[in-house]
Amino acid sequence: MQIILEAPKSQWSQYFKRPTQNIEKIKAKVVEIFSEVEKGGDEVVKKYTALFDGISLADYKVSKEELATCSQFLSQDLKDAIALAKANIDKFHKAQKIPSQAVETTQGVVCWQERRAIEKVGLYIPGGTAPLFSTVLMLAIPAQIAGCREVVLCSPPSADGSLHPAILYAAQQTGVTQIFKVGGIQAIAAMTFGTEVIPKVYKIFGPGNQYVTVAKQWATQYGTAIDMPAGPSELMVFADETAIPKFVAADLLSQAEHGVDSQVILISTSSEFIEQTQSEVFQQLKNLERKDIAEKSMQNSRLIYVENNKTAIEMINFYAPEHLIVCSSEESYFIENIQNAGSVFIGNYTPESAGDYASGTNHTLPTNGYSHTYEGVNLGSFLKNITFQKITAQGLKNIGKAIETMAEAEGLQAHKRAVSIRINET
Amino acid sequence: MQIILEAPKSQWSQYFKRPTQNIEKIKAKVVEIFSEVEKGGDEVVKKYTALFDGISLADYKVSKEELATCSQFLSQDLKDAIALAKANIDKFHKAQKIPSQAVETTQGVVCWQERRAIEKVGLYIPGGTAPLFSTVLMLAIPAQIAGCREVVLCSPPSADGSLHPAILYAAQQTGVTQIFKVGGIQAIAAMTFGTEVIPKVYKIFGPGNQYVTVAKQWATQYGTAIDMPAGPSELMVFADETAIPKFVAADLLSQAEHGVDSQVILISTSSEFIEQTQSEVFQQLKNLERKDIAEKSMQNSRLIYVENNKTAIEMINFYAPEHLIVCSSEESYFIENIQNAGSVFIGNYTPESAGDYASGTNHTLPTNGYSHTYEGVNLGSFLKNITFQKITAQGLKNIGKAIETMAEAEGLQAHKRAVSIRINET
Repeated sequence: MQIILEAPKSQWSQYFKRPTQNIEKIKAKVVEIFSEVEKGGDEVVKKYTALFDGISLADYKVSKEELATCSQFLSQDLKDAIALAKANIDKFHKAQKIPSQAVETTQGVVCWQERRAIEKVGLYIPGGTAPLFSTVLMLAIPAQIAGCREVVLCSPPSADGSLHPAILYAAQQTGVTQIFKVGGIQAIAAMTFGTEVIPKVYKIFGPGNQYVTVAKQWATQYGTAIDMPAGPSELMVFADETAIPKFVAADLLSQAEHGVDSQVILISTSSEFIEQTQSEVFQQLKNLERKDIAEKSMQNSRLIYVENNKTAIEMINFYAPEHLIVCSSEESYFIENIQNAGSVFIGNYTPESAGDYASGTNHTLPTNGYSHTYEGVNLGSFLKNITFQKITAQGLKNIGKAIETMAEAEGLQAHKRAVSIRINET
Repeated sequence: MQIILEAPKSQWSQYFKRPTQNIEKIKAKVVEIFSEVEKGGDEVVKKYTALFDGISLADYKVSKEELATCSQFLSQDLKDAIALAKANIDKFHKAQKIPSQAVETTQGVVCWQERRAIEKVGLYIPGGTAPLFSTVLMLAIPAQIAGCREVVLCSPPSADGSLHPAILYAAQQTGVTQIFKVGGIQAIAAMTFGTEVIPKVYKIFGPGNQYVTVAKQWATQYGTAIDMPAGPSELMVFADETAIPKFVAADLLSQAEHGVDSQVILISTSSEFIEQTQSEVFQQLKNLERKDIAEKSMQNSRLIYVENNKTAIEMINFYAPEHLIVCSSEESYFIENIQNAGSVFIGNYTPESAGDYASGTNHTLPTNGYSHTYEGVNLGSFLKNITFQKITAQGLKNIGKAIETMAEAEGLQAHKRAVSIRINET
């Protein structure tokens, strides 16, 4: 842990540098596999599943039988937990519905928006021993609320050719329409082009390793939308002397256990708090299961003293953290002035874990400074606005001259005439 | 004009094929110029401005003097027209503000969203003899309402080193903060990387030729967001026997005059209407200023007979038109069932021109079938949601067990402990 007691602005770029990734080699592989899948479809997908996941699958669609039996592998506690998380995620995302509202911009000129679902979406869920079934909830629930007609889920099979039952169970609970045992670059390519078995989708969501991340980015070159670009997960905490070192240390470690490239940053207006938190971190590290990972990422962490809340806000907005915890006696000041962040956790009893699983907010968030530009996944990520307008004969007269004048000035006579021909008629 | 009286579904892909573009050569150029601008900054931008626009500029920032005098080159009529358009666009986009609404998902667990502006955005406005000042309004007004701190506008200089006064005037009226006489690939690259003179922006908006389009698409590989991918402009009209052939013909021609690659499609449940419209088109073509262009794109147009409204809706949603005019005795049926379109114009007195200029809706819309996935530019395009949550000690107890169970099942002990340590404390 690096403690920084003086942090001049000229050094901020240095302190907040994200781990750079050399993606050139990965990209070459992505371009190659995309090109192969575009031409060869399922056969190519199967080839790469055998190569990367070590399993040859005759059929990689999850069967009705697999879905019917998955529930028996989950404890009742876990099913209850998933039910609670689902209810909260559902409630929060349903509240994001926006009623259509018509505006009469000029008398006789009525304009409005209608939000309609993206018909086909693809969800990517990473595999491995720790199955991210929580991400299934975070993506499939808003897709279901939006009314997406096809919700396709791809996830890499384990060595025995199965998907983890918790992933299947979560998918089953949330209206996923088709599940495929396909992962990595080949999964993203398959959803981009479509194969005989896997449908082409319009937008791909979800986290993944570097291969998946680069593949999603590449999919956009073919007109397929993605939720957002991605990088390693990160947490920034702002704490003043009202915060509790033990809690903050636990939060920092919960981020640090994600991976050795996770970023963990504490900023505080109290140097005493920084010291206390540091010793709490050492204390709590001792008996952590993923100690090795957490220790490594904590080595790159920074604990930064700032003079006042104003500088803290500037630092937050400069860094644009994915997750931000704020424990401050002046929390309203922070809420009002945070410009760039993915998800914000306010107060001593709001750990990041809550938003990761069950508070109701989404955990698919912009990393790597992308919260300068992007928002986390929300109901709107699965919808698009269509604008409508209806004009009366008199309404067109009211704005007709303006249209004619502007069309004329832009050299578009036929645009002008589409108005004149109507006005002259009435 | 190709009249199609029987349109089996198996042929739809054929009828609605978009003009394909070979972008390989353009892309190589884009990659090269991006790489040069990244390294060489302003000097490279100047080099390409000299090469492509035929003008060497010592300083390509628009000066205060140029802005101060631009208004005198515009007629009062044009200024009035711009004022009316601006008022309507302003009204419609301001109505898109969404009040923040807190949701208590579980007792003691409060979640909400706050929409904050993207701090730095770039607007690209094409140059040429027909200056698209209307696009300045469509992009800069929502940026201003959103509260973007920096709104940078790039547009290619004419041979004498100036920008059209109508572009400057529109920019001045709508809060654009800096204007640069830079166009093409080099403008997009400059806004992607930033140079000494041109700021780096987080998101780039606006139309352009193929070079600009491919450059914007390439900018996304560097983490810069764009409004949407783009292709040639297009109009689909659905009309039944209540529509007026003369009006529809004028609408088809207003689209056809954009460029020889514009797509114009009429679908109708009345073959008589199709015939009448066809002869109206020939009639109106005669004395059109941009006759040559309109004639060429009308050659590729299709007038398709469909048996009923249901098939028409299917066809609309299959094609996903940028612009859609609906003149039908059953307009509610269409409004309810349109799933994919950019902007929709309802009734006999709502020409596309109205939305292009002055009704208040945005004219920056998804082409090329992208309305399957994307929406047109709107207030939200300049904002991003940040989620917030605040949990009480009791609230955390209420959802704590669910979090602990899920974190455990995902193998993330430290995530679990961030909750346990708090619950045990209270």
